[in-house]
Amino acid sequence: MASQAVEEIAHPKREEIELGAVLHALSDPMRLKIVAALAASEGEKPCGSFNLPVTKSTCTHHFKVLREAGIIHQRQERTARLNSLRRGDLEARFPGLLEAVLRA
Amino acid sequence: MASQAVEEIAHPKREEIELGAVLHALSDPMRLKIVAALAASEGEKPCGSFNLPVTKSTCTHHFKVLREAGIIHQRQERTARLNSLRRGDLEARFPGLLEAVLRA
Repeated sequence: MASQAVEEIAHPKREEIELGAVLHALSDPMRLKIVAALAASEGEKPCGSFNLPVTKSTCTHHFKVLREAGIIHQRQERTARLNSLRRGDLEARFPGLLEAVLRA
Repeated sequence: MASQAVEEIAHPKREEIELGAVLHALSDPMRLKIVAALAASEGEKPCGSFNLPVTKSTCTHHFKVLREAGIIHQRQERTARLNSLRRGDLEARFPGLLEAVLRA
């Protein structure tokens, strides 16, 4: 049934998640907002639901940085790209880090 | 007795320390090494004592980024620039963050 080519959305495996990339990804205030919103919602959120004061392409870039760092998981559902926090993977790799950042 | 002009070494006050700047400063592996060495030594360490595989000017740059982010304190003593970790200030601003990063 899937006649259209589906763009692969690449994610690092848990053991490939690197501290430097995670810290860099979290060092941007807009990306920190995205992560805080995902942490508060506990579920999947489409990209359009974050109401960020930036252009769509900037927004897409921020989500990409977060995904490539291993902080969020993205999947495509029809026209929506759904985002969720990789809380378990982050906690396993860097215990306490995400909580400390979200608390700050 | 101090006849020579002393270059002022500027530090952000505790309340001026920003999460984004701290995370950015810690996102570099060389700077993370410096911070880990300072955390392990618990005292002041001169810049030359870190044995980093980078040029002196790169090293100076890394220390500057750490100082401006509020992560380290630097003071000049004769020809040596002495560095120490602002552990108390960081813990007060972002509880658990530094420990989580050092544990990673």
